[in-house]
Order: sequence, then C-alpha cells, then structure tokens
Amino acid sequence: MESLRCDCEHPLETVAGNEIVMNPLDLGEFRRQGHMVVDFLADYYKNIEEYPVLSQVEPGYLSKCLPSSAPHDGEPMEAMLDDVRRHIVPGLTHWQSPNFFAYFQISSSTAAILGEMLCAGYNVVGLNWVSSPAATELESLVMDWLGKMLDLPRPFLFSGNGGGVIEGNTAEAIICTLTAARDRVLRRAGHDSITKLVVYGSDQTHCSFLKAARIAGIDPQNIRALKTTKSTLFGLSPDSLRKAICLDIDAGLIPLYLCATVGTTSITAVDPLAPLCKVASEFDMWVHVDAAYAGASCICPEFRKFINGIELADSFSFNAHKWLLTSLDCCCLWVKDPNAIVKSLSTDPEYLKNEASESKQVVDYKDWQVSVSRRFRALKLWLVLRSYGVHNLRNHIRIHCRLAKLFEELVGEDGRFEVVFPRNFALVCFRIRPSVATSMSNVHTVHEGDGEAWKSNEANKLNAQLLHAINTSGRVFMTHAVIGGVYVLRFAVGATLVRERHVTMAWKVVQEHANSLFGMPRSEQHAT
Amino acid sequence: MESLRCDCEHPLETVAGNEIVMNPLDLGEFRRQGHMVVDFLADYYKNIEEYPVLSQVEPGYLSKCLPSSAPHDGEPMEAMLDDVRRHIVPGLTHWQSPNFFAYFQISSSTAAILGEMLCAGYNVVGLNWVSSPAATELESLVMDWLGKMLDLPRPFLFSGNGGGVIEGNTAEAIICTLTAARDRVLRRAGHDSITKLVVYGSDQTHCSFLKAARIAGIDPQNIRALKTTKSTLFGLSPDSLRKAICLDIDAGLIPLYLCATVGTTSITAVDPLAPLCKVASEFDMWVHVDAAYAGASCICPEFRKFINGIELADSFSFNAHKWLLTSLDCCCLWVKDPNAIVKSLSTDPEYLKNEASESKQVVDYKDWQVSVSRRFRALKLWLVLRSYGVHNLRNHIRIHCRLAKLFEELVGEDGRFEVVFPRNFALVCFRIRPSVATSMSNVHTVHEGDGEAWKSNEANKLNAQLLHAINTSGRVFMTHAVIGGVYVLRFAVGATLVRERHVTMAWKVVQEHANSLFGMPRSEQHAT
Repeated sequence: MESLRCDCEHPLETVAGNEIVMNPLDLGEFRRQGHMVVDFLADYYKNIEEYPVLSQVEPGYLSKCLPSSAPHDGEPMEAMLDDVRRHIVPGLTHWQSPNFFAYFQISSSTAAILGEMLCAGYNVVGLNWVSSPAATELESLVMDWLGKMLDLPRPFLFSGNGGGVIEGNTAEAIICTLTAARDRVLRRAGHDSITKLVVYGSDQTHCSFLKAARIAGIDPQNIRALKTTKSTLFGLSPDSLRKAICLDIDAGLIPLYLCATVGTTSITAVDPLAPLCKVASEFDMWVHVDAAYAGASCICPEFRKFINGIELADSFSFNAHKWLLTSLDCCCLWVKDPNAIVKSLSTDPEYLKNEASESKQVVDYKDWQVSVSRRFRALKLWLVLRSYGVHNLRNHIRIHCRLAKLFEELVGEDGRFEVVFPRNFALVCFRIRPSVATSMSNVHTVHEGDGEAWKSNEANKLNAQLLHAINTSGRVFMTHAVIGGVYVLRFAVGATLVRERHVTMAWKVVQEHANSLFGMPRSEQHAT
Repeated sequence: MESLRCDCEHPLETVAGNEIVMNPLDLGEFRRQGHMVVDFLADYYKNIEEYPVLSQVEPGYLSKCLPSSAPHDGEPMEAMLDDVRRHIVPGLTHWQSPNFFAYFQISSSTAAILGEMLCAGYNVVGLNWVSSPAATELESLVMDWLGKMLDLPRPFLFSGNGGGVIEGNTAEAIICTLTAARDRVLRRAGHDSITKLVVYGSDQTHCSFLKAARIAGIDPQNIRALKTTKSTLFGLSPDSLRKAICLDIDAGLIPLYLCATVGTTSITAVDPLAPLCKVASEFDMWVHVDAAYAGASCICPEFRKFINGIELADSFSFNAHKWLLTSLDCCCLWVKDPNAIVKSLSTDPEYLKNEASESKQVVDYKDWQVSVSRRFRALKLWLVLRSYGVHNLRNHIRIHCRLAKLFEELVGEDGRFEVVFPRNFALVCFRIRPSVATSMSNVHTVHEGDGEAWKSNEANKLNAQLLHAINTSGRVFMTHAVIGGVYVLRFAVGATLVRERHVTMAWKVVQEHANSLFGMPRSEQHAT
C-alpha cells in the first residue's frame, strides 16, 4: 500500500514559468461578479416575455456550441455570462415566464433567490445539530410557523411532539415515511415479510409514489393504483380501498401504506381524507397525504377544507417550491411520530458522535431524510414567509384562483370549447368539444356501437394537435393530461409574474390556433 | 364533492381598507436587495475569522430570539438581514472559515455561489429534456468534461455509451445504483429473492451506504461491514470479501453489490479496487466506488493511481461539493450502463409524455435519480470548471496536500504527539502519544494482562479531552475518529480560504491546549 501515498512534492502547474495560485473567494471579485450576476438576472426577468416559453432547440444543440473538454486556464465571468446568454437561455423552457401555464409552476421570488444566495454563501451543512445549530433550529421553527399557517393539528408540530422537516421533493418525503412504516411492520413480522407488503394509491397518484415504493423494495406487483372514476371526480373511493385491502388480506398479504392525494397532477382531484383514513386505521396502515401542489392553498381559511381529515393521517407533505414562492427545492414534510423515521434512517457513526446528539435534547435532521448532508434550505422559506407575510401569501393564492376562474369563463364563452372537470384550485382542464372534432373530421365511416368512443378518440387527436400548435408558437406553454380516456389541455395559473393580461392573451393564442385548425367560432362567423 | 370546490369569491386581505397585491419579483427591489445581499455576504467573508468556528450556542437558543409564528404583514429585507446577523450567524458552525478543519470540508467559491444564484434565478426544472433542454444538455456535457479530467475510462462517459448525472449526495448515488443492481437480479430470480440479497462494504464505509441499503429493502442482517485492520491500512481485503461471499452463498444467499471506498471518512483509507472488482466479478456483483472526498484529487495525474482499477467497476461517484469548490449539493455519479438505472427508476406518466422523450434521442434525468424534479446544478459545476480551469483546480488540491504535509511535520516535531496513520490526501490523523497519557495518569493500579489496552483507553480519553478543549475555544474546529480502538484527532485541510498561517496557527492552538492539559513539551521545558 505504501506506494499509493500522497505525492506532495508534485510541482504546481505554471503559466509562463509562474506557479498559479488562485483565490476562488477573492472578495473584490466576489463583489464585482456578484453584482454583475444580480443585474444579469434582473435583465433576464425584464426580458423574460420575449423568449419562446417552450424552448425551440433541437436535441444535441448544446454540444455544437460548447467545447467538449474543460478549459485548462480559467476564464473571466464575462465570457461565461455571454455564453449563458447565447447558448443556455435559448435552451431554457422558461418556468418563471408569466406565459408558462404548464405542469404545476415552480415559483420564484426575490426572497427565495436571496435565501438561496445566503444558503450558498454560508454553505453550512446542518447534518446534525452541532454541525450548525442555526440550520437545524431555524428549520424546526419555520416548519412550526408554516404548520400553524396551514392549521395543521398540533400533533404534527414540534410544539405537539411531532415535527416538520424540509426534504428535497415528494419522492423523498414518501421514501422516508414509507420506510418508517415498512420497518415498523418488519420489526414485528420479520424482514422476510417485505415481500407481502402492499401499498395503495390511486391511478391519479403522482409517479413519485411508484418510484418511492419501488425504491423501498415493495414488490411491484404489490403497488396498487386503484381505479378512480368520474363519479367521484377521480378521487379515490374509500369503498374501493377497502375492497382492495380485503382482497390482499385474503391473499395473505399485509396492507402497509396509503398515499392519499389532495390536488392530483392531472386535474387536481381530491381524495376524501377522513373516510380513507378511517379505512386505513382499521388495518393499522400508515397514511401519507401528498398535497404537493394544493397544500399551499390551505394557508387560506377558505381552502383549508380540502385537507379536512388530516388529523387522522400520519404524515403530510407539500412543496413550498410550487405555489409558495420558495424556489426549487423545498418539500415540507410533517409527521406525527418523527421517531418512526429516525428509527429507520438514523446512523450513528463514531465520526459524527457529539455531546449534543447524545443528550437527546436536539434534532439531528440527517436522521429525518435520505441523505446525510443537507443544504440550509430553511433560510429561503423563512425569508419568504417574513418578506411577504401571511396576508400577502394568501392573496397570492387567491389572485391565481381568480385568474383561473377568468380563464374558465373565457373558455365557457366559446361554444367550441368546454371545461372538462370542475376546478378546485388554479388549474383549468379544457378541450375542444368532441362535437367540433366530429364535424371537422373527414372520416365518414360509421363505427357501429362505438360512436361515443370514436368521437372521443377523434377529439383527443385534435386536442393534441391544438396543444402542439400552441406550444410550438412559443407564446405560451401548457401541458396535457388524459383522464377517463379524455385528452385535456391543462391551464395552470401559478407563475409569480402572471397577471390578467397574460391569461387573456393565452386564451387569445388558444383561440387563434383553434381558428386556423378548426375554423372560427359560430358567433364570430356571424359577426363577419 | 361539489361543496369542496374553489371559493374564488373570497375577498383579498386588506390593510387600511386597501387590497394587498404584491409583486414578489419587482425588478427594482430585486436589484436593490440582490446587491445588498452580495455585499452582506462579502462582509461575512471579510469577517469570517472573527467568529468562533464551532458555534457556541446552547440547544434551543433560537426560539428565544425569534417569534413563534409567521408575521401577518411583510417585513423589509433589512430587518431580516439584521436578524441573520444577530441570531443566525452566531448559530452557524462556519464551514467556510479557514480555521475549519473538521469532517471533510464543503468548499465554496465565487463561481459556485454565482452558479447557485443563476440556478435559483432561472428556477427551471430539467426533469426531462423538453422541460429545459439546456439543463439536461449542459449536465451531460459537463459530466463528460469532468469524467475526462478524472481520466475515467470511456465506458463511463456519454461519448462511450455510459454517462454521468449530478445527484444531491452519496446516499442518492448508492440508492440509484443499488436499486438498479437489485432489480437486475430480481427480474431474473423473482421479487421474493429480495430477502436473500447481500451487500458488502467495510467497517470503514460511509454510513450513507448503510442508509441506502436499508432504504432499498435489503435485510439489515444482509448488510456486511467487513472488518478491516491495520495490516491493510484499513482498506478492505479482497480475501475477506471472498470469504464473506462464499459463506453467504453457502447459506443460500445472493451476493449483490459491493461499495468500495477511495478515501474513507475516518482516515482516508483506500480500498484496493482492482482485486476487489475481480472478486466481485466472479460472482456477477455490481461494484460501486464511493470516492466522495478523494475523487476530486484524481484530476491531478499524480493522484489518479488511487482509482486504478475503476475500469472494472460499474459505477463511480464523488462529491464535487467537497474538495472541488462547487458548494453543496453536487454529487457526481457515472455509470457504465445508465439503462440499468433507467429500468428501475423510470416512470412514464401521461402528463409528462412528449415527442422528444418518445424519440429516445434525449436523456430524461428524472429517470436517473430518486426524485422527479431537479435543480439546474450543472450551472455551478460548469462555472467552477471554467472560472478556474484544470490548471488552477489541480493546484488547489496540491496546495492543500502540501499544507497537510506541513501540519504533519509540525506534529512530528513535538515528541508528545504522533501521526497515527499514513496520509494519502489532505487529512492528518494524529494524537497525544499513549506514553504521555500514561505519565499524566493518576491511576496507579496495575491492570494485569491488560496493560496496552489500558494505556490506549487512557490515551483515548485524554485525546478526547484535548479535542474538546480545542473546539470549545472556538479558534479552530476539528473532529475525531476511532479506528482499531484508537481515538485520533482529524485535521482535514480543504477550506477554500485556508493558507499556511491558518495551519501553523491551528497547530499552535493544539499545542497551547496540550500544554495546559499535559504540560510543556520536553524541548521547551529545557528552553525555559
């Protein structure tokens, strides 16, 4: 092994005979470049509406613009920002554009960006309390703040013997809670029972659940995506949950975990928490509530009803980075029994031992998450909550819901279109009516006994065509969902910068593309 | 369900009768506050040596300084920065201080901080190619750059049909590769075989491995931490690996995965990759190489030998956020067969379907990681590599190794101390000699037949006492390890701002505390 030892005598690299010794934290340069980047970003936001929302580049574009190896000598920041402007920005899909109505938004704000700057600047690792007490204590404090804003039951708060933690994302929140639930059962039943564990969600549950369950070693055959229907507005029915559980028990399996959703990705459907939790509790299951998108709205008293029943669940998560201005990544998870997670995820290597941890008087967040290291994300959440305050944040949510309502009304005024599902939050699901699609179609063959389905397939195709045309225009960006066999366009309001004019303009873009694809609406045909 | 629908008529919150409508991305405010925070951080770095390195606060300090609920009205950034200065900074353990010699450093740089600013500013989500092509393509490009800098074999690069991805941390890198390896076997052997899978590391492997293996559903009884000894400098012996595997096979178990380490956390031991990989390949196992800390050094040709044999492994990860100036979080993972990970982690929900993904011509990084969402971390890695260039980055590593060597020499000049293990990189493990501890001890009882161990226990206690005194001084911060029953002080050189004067001062602090605890060194006693 001796031959492997460190070669400390290796000469430094030189340029023109001089050894290169740099200071990557030179304060003058830090100030100069820091100010430059602040202005660079401000300019980006000033011009953000000029870019195509959906990037128009082709696969492989970037490797044609940039060299294939790292440079040997350092380059000035100006050269890099120039490359960002010329090569990176055209390849961005502009999530912060007020014309971005796709997926669910990841919303930014000045406070969040400043929070990320401080986080990167201090660059501390609050892996356990002692490694940076403020990182741990601010996170615990701010998670209690936010828990109170959501009117979470006290058992989820530190002040009620539960507690909150900032994870990176929903998959991580599910992995932590599912692992805790899994190990609670396996400690009793023996590890071999892992092959019998069953987890439940609906066919509308986010794919993070599937991913997390697979990662946690649940047999893919035991991951249930229970069918939802229009009759329950695509919420999970407690009856179908009970039936599935009973079938599984009859087959010798062990029901473990339910992931209920408030605000599904496709259409913001809401699973009925209270009755689902009651079913789950009969079978001693862990219930996690994923309100990734919609959770933020519950800071408004009038939306709080959507998580009624949460008092019966074991854990709750939502992404403050979605609708609460906090920038990626900030997934807030509360659990009633943090100790269940700690039991599964704690490791206690000698090199991390310290008095504070041994006193059991402190939180060591490394044991509440997948990773050991962690960024100081609480800073940005704290800055957002303080910069804007509860009043402003509630209005932020309400204004977006009003804008969604406005869009819904615009859709309703055009007879070619319909709003497909009732709206719960700030997402509108709409489409060209099947009757328009039929009248447009050149297919005259009669499909006997298959009329409705055929109409729908045709409508689906034309709606997909419409969405494609809208998005390739670069003027707005929306995405789609297919639910109950119906293809819908999703219009999500959630960008920080969105105002009424963006919504009305987006609707104009939809209409213009519909006009050129399907002809003018009847009323306008009359007018001309 | 109808009663649950959105209440869009709820009036906005008002202050003095006026509806509150804010703009959280007001450009004037963004510039003003952004510049303020740049200067705020620059001042922090200017004064960083004035703070106690290890925070001196008591558990629960912060809840006494801050309110227990979020404010209803927004507050000015000035007020918050004032609170940061008064309440947060005292609770930080200053990881960027040049007097921080603990754990392994998480190193910052101007380029990385600017990269984080741009990442937070653009706030795009490169979950798949289409959601921001530049985020995906820059990551692929820069991972090839870095792979070439490390002289990784071509099969790990995109240009050689492998590929690299930025994960948040080592636990995630292990989860992704372990899940891939696990599912490859389970697809063949059936999911019930999960209870038979065995994973191997040494008793020096980082606790992330244990965490990841537990999360992936490996039976805790099948997670092997093979004993290492002084005879192999605490590297994992291929013979002991083979023996363990054979025992497991005899017991009807299935060997699955080896996590080999280059640069262990306690003492930077190096597992011999080539012979370990040869053993593993006989049993068709996946070999992951975790070089979290030491990987960065391999950009220097003289350190590259430490990962010789990597060509026989399946995957390799190291944390650019440790020794490569890239700020938390940036764990670089390369795999020879990305498809194995994609098979395990891909989900393909309708709402994410798009032409580019269906063409199979693009990388969708959501299928290479635990989460679906992801930050644009490639920006900061790219800025770091370009800002400093390969020459400077190599010198950065070399200078730290020289400073470690200097510290080692200082230790060697004081007869009370000894360097305990040969140094491979920039970590020095040292302690007060057991003989000094013995002469200090007031215990005169003879422990028959237990003399050496007793001495050692006594030395361990006194070294722990010394470390405690050093750290509570706040002047420097080091941590410890216990290896082969020996307690050592770890002196890790890795802070961006560390210079020779910090190293010599740190040694003075050690000596001063040793003097007051154990008396002066003999040479100085003569001098006085």
